[in-house]
Amino acid sequence: MDKIEEICRKRKQAHQILLSMDSKVYRAFLDMEAAAYVDGALAKKYKELIAVGISVVTDCGSCMQWHIEQAVKAGADRQEVLEAVEVGMEMGGGRATVSARFALEVMDKVFGEPSPR
Amino acid sequence: MDKIEEICRKRKQAHQILLSMDSKVYRAFLDMEAAAYVDGALAKKYKELIAVGISVVTDCGSCMQWHIEQAVKAGADRQEVLEAVEVGMEMGGGRATVSARFALEVMDKVFGEPSPR
Amino acid sequence: MDKIEEICRKRKQAHQILLSMDSKVYRAFLDMEAAAYVDGALAKKYKELIAVGISVVTDCGSCMQWHIEQAVKAGADRQEVLEAVEVGMEMGGGRATVSARFALEVMDKVFGEPSPR
Amino acid sequence: MDKIEEICRKRKQAHQILLSMDSKVYRAFLDMEAAAYVDGALAKKYKELIAVGISVVTDCGSCMQWHIEQAVKAGADRQEVLEAVEVGMEMGGGRATVSARFALEVMDKVFGEPSPR
Amino acid sequence: MDKIEEICRKRKQAHQILLSMDSKVYRAFLDMEAAAYVDGALAKKYKELIAVGISVVTDCGSCMQWHIEQAVKAGADRQEVLEAVEVGMEMGGGRATVSARFALEVMDKVFGEPSPR
Amino acid sequence: MDKIEEICRKRKQAHQILLSMDSKVYRAFLDMEAAAYVDGALAKKYKELIAVGISVVTDCGSCMQWHIEQAVKAGADRQEVLEAVEVGMEMGGGRATVSARFALEVMDKVFGEPSPR
Repeated sequence: MDKIEEICRKRKQAHQILLSMDSKVYRAFLDMEAAAYVDGALAKKYKELIAVGISVVTDCGSCMQWHIEQAVKAGADRQEVLEAVEVGMEMGGGRATVSARFALEVMDKVFGEPSPR
Repeated sequence: MDKIEEICRKRKQAHQILLSMDSKVYRAFLDMEAAAYVDGALAKKYKELIAVGISVVTDCGSCMQWHIEQAVKAGADRQEVLEAVEVGMEMGGGRATVSARFALEVMDKVFGEPSPR
Repeated sequence: MDKIEEICRKRKQAHQILLSMDSKVYRAFLDMEAAAYVDGALAKKYKELIAVGISVVTDCGSCMQWHIEQAVKAGADRQEVLEAVEVGMEMGGGRATVSARFALEVMDKVFGEPSPR
Repeated sequence: MDKIEEICRKRKQAHQILLSMDSKVYRAFLDMEAAAYVDGALAKKYKELIAVGISVVTDCGSCMQWHIEQAVKAGADRQEVLEAVEVGMEMGGGRATVSARFALEVMDKVFGEPSPR
Repeated sequence: MDKIEEICRKRKQAHQILLSMDSKVYRAFLDMEAAAYVDGALAKKYKELIAVGISVVTDCGSCMQWHIEQAVKAGADRQEVLEAVEVGMEMGGGRATVSARFALEVMDKVFGEPSPR
Repeated sequence: MDKIEEICRKRKQAHQILLSMDSKVYRAFLDMEAAAYVDGALAKKYKELIAVGISVVTDCGSCMQWHIEQAVKAGADRQEVLEAVEVGMEMGGGRATVSARFALEVMDKVFGEPSPR
């Protein structure tokens, strides 16, 4: 199983466990997440791209996978995702260029074909 | 001198020192910054808002001041800035709600009147 | 105004602004916070001390002020707070010993008399 | 070999190498660790749970594995570990909910049966 | 494929993609990197060792692999690399001792024989 | 009192409190610190410069003040300190260029005259 599939499987599993254990903290987090990414003054697409930039700086692979996928579902194209990743690289330097590699892998998967190289 | 003015003064001073000391690393950083925030597939406004979200998560006051100001110059309104800050709070939790306070102060300054409270 | 008072004033102000601007993300965060610190299998006192340790590692002054105060209200004494800070220092090394200084200042304030020195 | 076993193997191996290379910094770290987790005003169990919360916020898998195991040896039950993880999620937001997934895996291993799901 | 080889393969692949997608941010980053590690008042060897210490504190495996290799090419021996890692452990505490394990693996590979243990 | 003097005063005060409260964790940390910065295979000067680079990336003002001063006492000149700061900027990007401003202030103080600007 590749890293992206493993992330998706583990996200679902943890989600089920936390609900089964009746974690009220996690439930409130789900509400916070729902509130954060609705279409508002900013369209959902841009909110997801903000999360992509944050994910690069905090080196969160699962966050990159999720928010790139959501951004694309909300209409973002490959160049837009790249430019969000670039803002992460500018803010986070060499450390972030390493995190950004996984974002590129996710983009290949989400867009269904490899990047030009 | 308030905190926002002090940030601006120190940014300018450090900029001058690094150029006077002929820091080639800093010069390359300036190029990276210039490249990251041009209008591209994503408009500059959205790139600045991505940086605002990152600034909240990394608790960078100077970054919040700069990128909120740039976002507003590029057309962002108060609610759009708030929603970028909210994405930062969702990604960064309680720690980020503390950082976000300074973003609210910057917003009061940039929009020239206090938030409703 | 000293740093601790300023933190308290800014916390209240940001709280009011975020509610006035009707931030649903912030409201959900307040629910998450309420859920996290109730007496549960772990008493509130210990949950607050966990937050103290996290605050030291993430260098969050406002978090130290809040969670030390809450821990003490829930029954923690000076030595217990110190030991939570020590876990933060063990996990976070030299960087955390710097953050821990503010925890000591908060302790002086909360316990109403200076530490022995 | 699964991730938890690999962590344990690598911890032992690094421990041996650092002692063989006579790292005095590492030796002092071991003393610091020993001092941090003794029963004191706070029982060892609670100190380990503080470390669990910190591990979630700093996304340290090895730390989660170690400190959850130590907390359980010192008497913590599943719900207590979960509540420590929840404090980490409150403090660290969406980023920490991702880290928390590994804590759930460690709990399944340590308690010898899967969580309800 | 082991973790070190995978890092090297992914670094090359991401490098090619970012150049193919004409990322001007990444190009400026490459200039910044080139400027940072030239022989200057500080020899390249010491600059690479600074980066090794930073990599330990930021838990960046790819950075450890790259900068240890570069440090050794610039003349650093095993004990010098270890001492840079030790500074990282002092600054970053228990969290950094976990990151440091991968630095030890890289050292085994770079020096072509296992550490004494 | 300026920020640098305040850092020095607070460091001393916290040091005294932690010793008065008999913190064994802090005592072990002092041993770790002593072990990390001795002249070894790497001279103390270079170890202090590694800590300077780390301090920039972790945005630790007190660490910058201390380690720049120690580096200079151990023989580092202004350009060498700058190059250590530059490695921090390369590794940490825009966020680190903000932290680096305080390093420049410390350099002005330590070298007894302002940088050219």
